[in-house]
Order: sequence, then C-alpha cells, then structure tokens
Amino acid sequence: MNYVSTAVTPVVSPFDALGLTDVTAKLEDSILIVTLNRSHKMNSFSEKMGVDLVRIFQFGDQDDRVRVIVLTADPASPAFCAGVDMEEVTRGSSLLGRKEDTEIGHRDPGGQVAMAIYNNRKITIVAVNGHASGIGLTALQFPFDFRFIWSGSKLTIPFVRLGIAPESTSTYLLSRLIGESRAAAVLFSGAVMQPDSPFLSSLYYEVLPQRTDVLPSAIVLAKTISVNFSQTSIAYSKGLLHHAGTSIEENHLLDSRVIKLLGTSRDAAEGAKAFMQRRKPKFSDTLTRSLSPWYPWWKITDVRHPKSKL
Amino acid sequence: MNYVSTAVTPVVSPFDALGLTDVTAKLEDSILIVTLNRSHKMNSFSEKMGVDLVRIFQFGDQDDRVRVIVLTADPASPAFCAGVDMEEVTRGSSLLGRKEDTEIGHRDPGGQVAMAIYNNRKITIVAVNGHASGIGLTALQFPFDFRFIWSGSKLTIPFVRLGIAPESTSTYLLSRLIGESRAAAVLFSGAVMQPDSPFLSSLYYEVLPQRTDVLPSAIVLAKTISVNFSQTSIAYSKGLLHHAGTSIEENHLLDSRVIKLLGTSRDAAEGAKAFMQRRKPKFSDTLTRSLSPWYPWWKITDVRHPKSKL
Amino acid sequence: MNYVSTAVTPVVSPFDALGLTDVTAKLEDSILIVTLNRSHKMNSFSEKMGVDLVRIFQFGDQDDRVRVIVLTADPASPAFCAGVDMEEVTRGSSLLGRKEDTEIGHRDPGGQVAMAIYNNRKITIVAVNGHASGIGLTALQFPFDFRFIWSGSKLTIPFVRLGIAPESTSTYLLSRLIGESRAAAVLFSGAVMQPDSPFLSSLYYEVLPQRTDVLPSAIVLAKTISVNFSQTSIAYSKGLLHHAGTSIEENHLLDSRVIKLLGTSRDAAEGAKAFMQRRKPKFSDTLTRSLSPWYPWWKITDVRHPKSKL
Repeated sequence: MNYVSTAVTPVVSPFDALGLTDVTAKLEDSILIVTLNRSHKMNSFSEKMGVDLVRIFQFGDQDDRVRVIVLTADPASPAFCAGVDMEEVTRGSSLLGRKEDTEIGHRDPGGQVAMAIYNNRKITIVAVNGHASGIGLTALQFPFDFRFIWSGSKLTIPFVRLGIAPESTSTYLLSRLIGESRAAAVLFSGAVMQPDSPFLSSLYYEVLPQRTDVLPSAIVLAKTISVNFSQTSIAYSKGLLHHAGTSIEENHLLDSRVIKLLGTSRDAAEGAKAFMQRRKPKFSDTLTRSLSPWYPWWKITDVRHPKSKL
Repeated sequence: MNYVSTAVTPVVSPFDALGLTDVTAKLEDSILIVTLNRSHKMNSFSEKMGVDLVRIFQFGDQDDRVRVIVLTADPASPAFCAGVDMEEVTRGSSLLGRKEDTEIGHRDPGGQVAMAIYNNRKITIVAVNGHASGIGLTALQFPFDFRFIWSGSKLTIPFVRLGIAPESTSTYLLSRLIGESRAAAVLFSGAVMQPDSPFLSSLYYEVLPQRTDVLPSAIVLAKTISVNFSQTSIAYSKGLLHHAGTSIEENHLLDSRVIKLLGTSRDAAEGAKAFMQRRKPKFSDTLTRSLSPWYPWWKITDVRHPKSKL
Repeated sequence: MNYVSTAVTPVVSPFDALGLTDVTAKLEDSILIVTLNRSHKMNSFSEKMGVDLVRIFQFGDQDDRVRVIVLTADPASPAFCAGVDMEEVTRGSSLLGRKEDTEIGHRDPGGQVAMAIYNNRKITIVAVNGHASGIGLTALQFPFDFRFIWSGSKLTIPFVRLGIAPESTSTYLLSRLIGESRAAAVLFSGAVMQPDSPFLSSLYYEVLPQRTDVLPSAIVLAKTISVNFSQTSIAYSKGLLHHAGTSIEENHLLDSRVIKLLGTSRDAAEGAKAFMQRRKPKFSDTLTRSLSPWYPWWKITDVRHPKSKL
C-alpha cells in the first residue's frame, strides 16, 4: 500500500482541480486518505496546507463515494506536525493575521481547517504518526471523530509561551472533548506530554507502540465503518452529537425527528433485515439523495470575512 | 430478599392503578425497586415497557414515601436489556415511528423514559446485572444519577450499523456525562465494550465481579441515601446540576437562592443540629409540602405530541 | 522560605489596606501566595475569610506585578479547610443566608470567592496540603486553573447530608471540569474520597505523597508560568476557555480576533524572536496597558445584591 502520494492514481485524478501541493490525497474503497506532505519542513503548517486541507475535507464531505476520511503525515517527516511554519509567519503570512487586516478582519486558517473537519458529515479519523506541536494538536487532532496515535509522540501546546493564544477553535473543542480541568492543564501548563498522560489519554481511541502501526490501525476502523455503517446515519448522528440542543427536552424533539426520518429510510429497512438475517447490511442511501431538507437543523453563524465574496 | 416481583406485596398494591406488565415494582424502606420483567425476550424494550417505566418513575417522583428509585432486571434473563424488541418494530410499533406519524409527529419512547428518569427529583440508581445493547444503555443507563454494573457485561450501541441514529436523548446525556471524545467512541465505533473500557468506565459508580452482587451493592447506596439525605436537598441539588445556568454568575444567583431557601428549612436546622451532636439526622421535609413555588426555575420545553391532549 | 505570614514583609505591605485577618498574603517573584490562617479552627471558612479571599484575589487580578496566585493553608492546621464554620452559622452569619434577607437577597459568600478566583485574569493554583470538606472543595479548589494535592487528603461534600445544597457555583464548575457523571458521584454520594478516586482524580494536576511537598511543587509550576508566559496571553486564553462561544463558528470568530490582537503585540514579537533564537522570552506587556477594550467580550451578569451600592 502506498498512502503517500497521488502520483500512482489514474491519469485524471478527482483531486486535480483542487490544486493540492502541501497535502496529498487518495481515494480507496470509500476511504479518503489525506497525507501531510511537507516532510522537508517537519510538516509544519503553511498557509497553503490550510487551504489544501479545507479543500480536500470539503471534497470528502460532498462526494458520495467517500465514507471515511483519514488524515496522516508523510512518515518520512520527523514530526506529524511541528506547529505553524514560523518562517512563513515572520515573512508575513496570514497565520497570525496580516498587518492590513482590521481587528475583526482576520480569519484564523487553523480554525478554517478545524471547522472543515469537525463539521464534516463523514467519519473523520486522524493517524498521528509522530510528534505534534500547537496547531498539530489543535487543528489537526481535536476536530476528528477518532484519534489514533503513536505512544512515543511528544505533544505540546506552546501558545502562552509564545505570547499568543490557543487557536483553531481549540478552547471550544478541547473543553467539550475532555472537560475543562484537563483542557486547562493541556493549554496552560506549556508542558510536553505523551499520549499516556492522564490529561490527554481520553482524547485517543487507540495508542500504538510503533509509528508504523498507527495508519494501518486507523485504516482497520475506517474499513469497518465504510463497510458496515450507513452514510446518512452517520451524518444525522454526528449532527445530534455536535448539536444536541440546550435541554434534554430539545434533544428529545431532535432525535425523535431523526429517528422518524431514518426509520422509514431504505437504510433502516436494510439494517433491520440484515440484523434479523444475521448478515452484514448493504446500505445504499447517500447524502446527496437521502438527507432531509431539514438537515442541518442548527443555525450556522456566518464566519466569512466581512469583505469576502465567498 | 425478593426484588423480582410485586406478587409478595400486600393485596392492594399502590402500583395496581399503573397497570404494569413489562416491569414489576416494589416499595421497601423508602426505596422503590423496579425490575425489567421480559426475561423471555432477553428484557428487550417493548412499547409497553416504555409506558410502564414512565409511569413507575413518575410515581416515584411524586410519592413522598419514595426517596430512591433503583432499576434492575430479572436475573433470570440472559441480558439486562437486549435493545429494542425488533419483532415489535417490524410489526409496526411506535419504537421507530409509526407510518401515520408526520415528520415532526413522532415521540421516541426511549426518550420519554430517559426524561422520566433524568428529570426525576429523587435519586435514581441502575443496577446493570447483565449485557446491554442500544436502548439498554441509552434510556436505561445514561439518565441515572448512579450506575452499578457487572464487570462481565457486554455493552454496545449499534445504531449506525442499523441505519438509524442514537436515540433516547443519548447524544445530550452522553456528552454531558463523559465528554464528547469518549461519547464519539461509544456512539460511532459500533464496538462491543465492557465496563472497564476507558471510554465507558467513568460512567459507572461501582463495577462488581459477580452479576448477583450488582443489585445488593446498589441497595447499600440507596439505603445510605434514603436514611441520611434530605429529600428537598436532593431535589434542589439535582436541579442545580442539571440546570446550572449559562455562566458562573447565573449559577451563583441560582445556588444563592437555593441556599437561602434551604438554609431556613427544618431539614437544614435538623442537619446542623445532628452535625453538632455527631448523630444521624432525621429529615422530615417532603417535596409535596416543602418545595418553593420557584422550583423548577428552568423553562421546560413542551414535548407533547402536537395533537396530544395530555 | 516562609510562606505562612506577611509579618516578615517590609513595614508598609501592599496588602495593609486590605485588612486581611483570616488569610495572609505574600508577593515574591511575581507570585502572590495566599495562606488560609485559621488553623485554630481547622481553617474552617468564616465570613471574614470569604471577604479576605475576594479582596486578595481581586488585588492579584488588578496588580500588574502579580503573574500567578497560589492558595494554600497554614500547615499547622489539621485540615486544609474543614468546611464552613458551623459555629458562625448557628450564630447567624451570612454563610447560609441571614434571616432578614429576602429569598432573592442572599449572595452566597462561597460563590463570591469562587467567582473572584475563576474570573481571575492571572493563573491561579491551589496547593491542598490537608483534608477538605464542603466549601474546602467547592470554593477553594474547583475555580482554580491548577490543583495540587496531598495524596492522603480526605475529601467530602456533605451538603445533602446537612439538608442544604452544593454552593459556591460548584454545580456549574464541577460538571464543566470533570463531566456530569463524576460530578453526580462527588456531589450526591456523600462519600469520603481521596485524590486517587476515579471520580476526583482528573481534577488534580499533581498528587504529592507528602503534605509538605504540595506547596513547593505548586511553586515550581508557578515559577515556570511567571517567568515564561505572557500575562496578556494568559488573560485572553483563560477568557477563550471560560467563554468559548456557543458554537465552533462563534469560537472561530473569537479566537481569530484574539490571535489578530495578540499577533501584533510586543509579547508575540518577543515570543517569536525568542523561539527562533532558542532562548527564553522576556515579556513586557501588562494587563493595565495592553488589553484591548474589547476584552472581556462576554456579557457579565450583574450579581450584586439588589440593594447594594457596590
């Protein structure tokens, strides 16, 4: 298997129009594998890497052929991601805000990536096969549904040491993921931790002793999901987890409606039939064809740049 | 001890009017013990079981004689609860929504049960003395104040495998209970877990090595609570935990008011006196007589069926 | 080192105007050390102790010389804090509400302390060098950024046993800190726990085997923070963690603005320079001079007493 480069895919890749340079992508058996491709820079996060990641995760969200998206890093790199590219920052990239931006005009590139992952309607998995710093945790680990990691990874969030602050929507995500006690320890201690740290361990679905085992283990889960799970079920379920409502009563109205919508779907009929016949289901509903216009039911705050036409 | 059947209670049971069939109930020393009673169907969740559970938990909420409610399952059953009764579903029960319901007309029976438990003003304890699947976790474990379980229990949430979605207000409850990282692992992996799983373990107050130890251990805690704790204290304290306000300042206004209300109560006077005299308190305040009209202070969304007269 | 008394500080202490009696304070190397000073009463929480704590934490918040605040207890006391002073309560202190207060007129003194700590813009650390009960956990541990504790500490929340309810904003804080499953176990079991309890352990940053090691270990972290971290970074970062917004999109707008504000600051320039030069940064921005008028960006509910002129 070669998850590193798109060079081995057919002549016309579905990703050609995306103009990817700092990541590569490969679609295989409904699994979209995305690889950080800046090993010469320890996979540090560049402005272009952020653009590439938003594009490829949006592609994965919208293309019905994709059931699971897996992010990993070129194993040739000494780090999974060594943080933002500080050379780019000092040259004036948008990573910490351009000089010409007004106070409310900046849009954090890490946050754009985090939203493209967290709001993705497909299952997202990250395979952290190396050390990670700053944005290598915040944007590139926190927003995923499942996190696999190498036990030897050294992990640190250095923002308060650098005179800046946690970005990439990390304060929102981390307190939701593991609670505010551990989030404070991770964000404010400046300590270097490993995956078995009691502050971080609940983030990880699986911790692997070998760097080279991380991606294959993530792929095993990705295959289970892509073969056995309904695409529409996943989209509604992620919606219910991320937008559960502000009270148990509101959640009851939401999940009742989802159950009713899915309960009459082809996938639910197939799921029940397969269950009774003790065989694997063959789901055929897709997001393009089968989602109710009611989805998404939550209000989405417009985060476009005030002057953006996008 | 026989917690299994109401048949040994006096001729006129306080539960007769409830018409229970799929659960049994017994009131002993202020502890209401409810037992799932469908061992011939592996205690799978029927429409009637849902109705019975709502009725008996509402009874426990309203009857001042009840201080603690304990749910368990007939130990003759191979499972604590094997999920929804799929035969009922295929016969067209309301469990996944009836055909004649509109998109917004369905009310998930599991959610009705979950709300009757989570909103209960008495302490609720579940004694999971067997395996559990789907609704056997979502409605029958998550909404409780305390969860006791057999270490050998096999636990799984199969919704995404069945083409449906997590129900019974489980996305609301699980993310609040254990955080979104573990909730995603439990809801989206489809994996079979046991109580010592790092994803589930923080749900459980006590894990017992023997199935037969689970209920007795739960009863020990129930007795401690029923003998030593103030009923009104519990109702206000549960209210504060479930409806803590949206900021620390709002919580301060709420708990200040609760402290003032309770601080001048007979139970608080008795509690302070017993503390100074180093003896056990004898609390006499009841929910019927002693709750302020201000309780509940939170807005409750109306979840009745649009056409319901109830 | 003598952290116990201010008596050894110079003739004119900056704290003289505060009129502290039930706590002492000492400022050393940008670290403000506050010590509970009622060992004759097992450091039980008096009305005056509450007033003193609010004053000294507000001092620490406002004085630019202070970078970290550490709370500990006089080690001569058999307990870190044995709960509220029940003798004061029975004499009619405001701790449980005065008789003349209306139902909405009481302001819980523990909550006033908790807010002064949780809303503090400096890093706050507690060094729990003994047993703790009730308010000794709720007001004096939960609101801190970091908790250090002696492994032998016995910890209990006895409110439901006393006929009252969890106070000091503890239901808000505890569910955010460790999730509602563990919070319920801590608040409703009435059990005596130790720091290695699975319900409590995630609260603590470090657990020390010796009582006398707790404060020195806390000071080590305090020094790391006071020397290496930007004061403005900490203030904005704490704001982002405590007020993360109600959606990932809202959080993205908030942290983008913080990144833009900090990204052009002297501290960020110094932080980047120090990083590239592989040396320690020398931060000079202060809260008085360098915070944007936009901070705090969140709405603060007015919790003053209805008739208060403060």
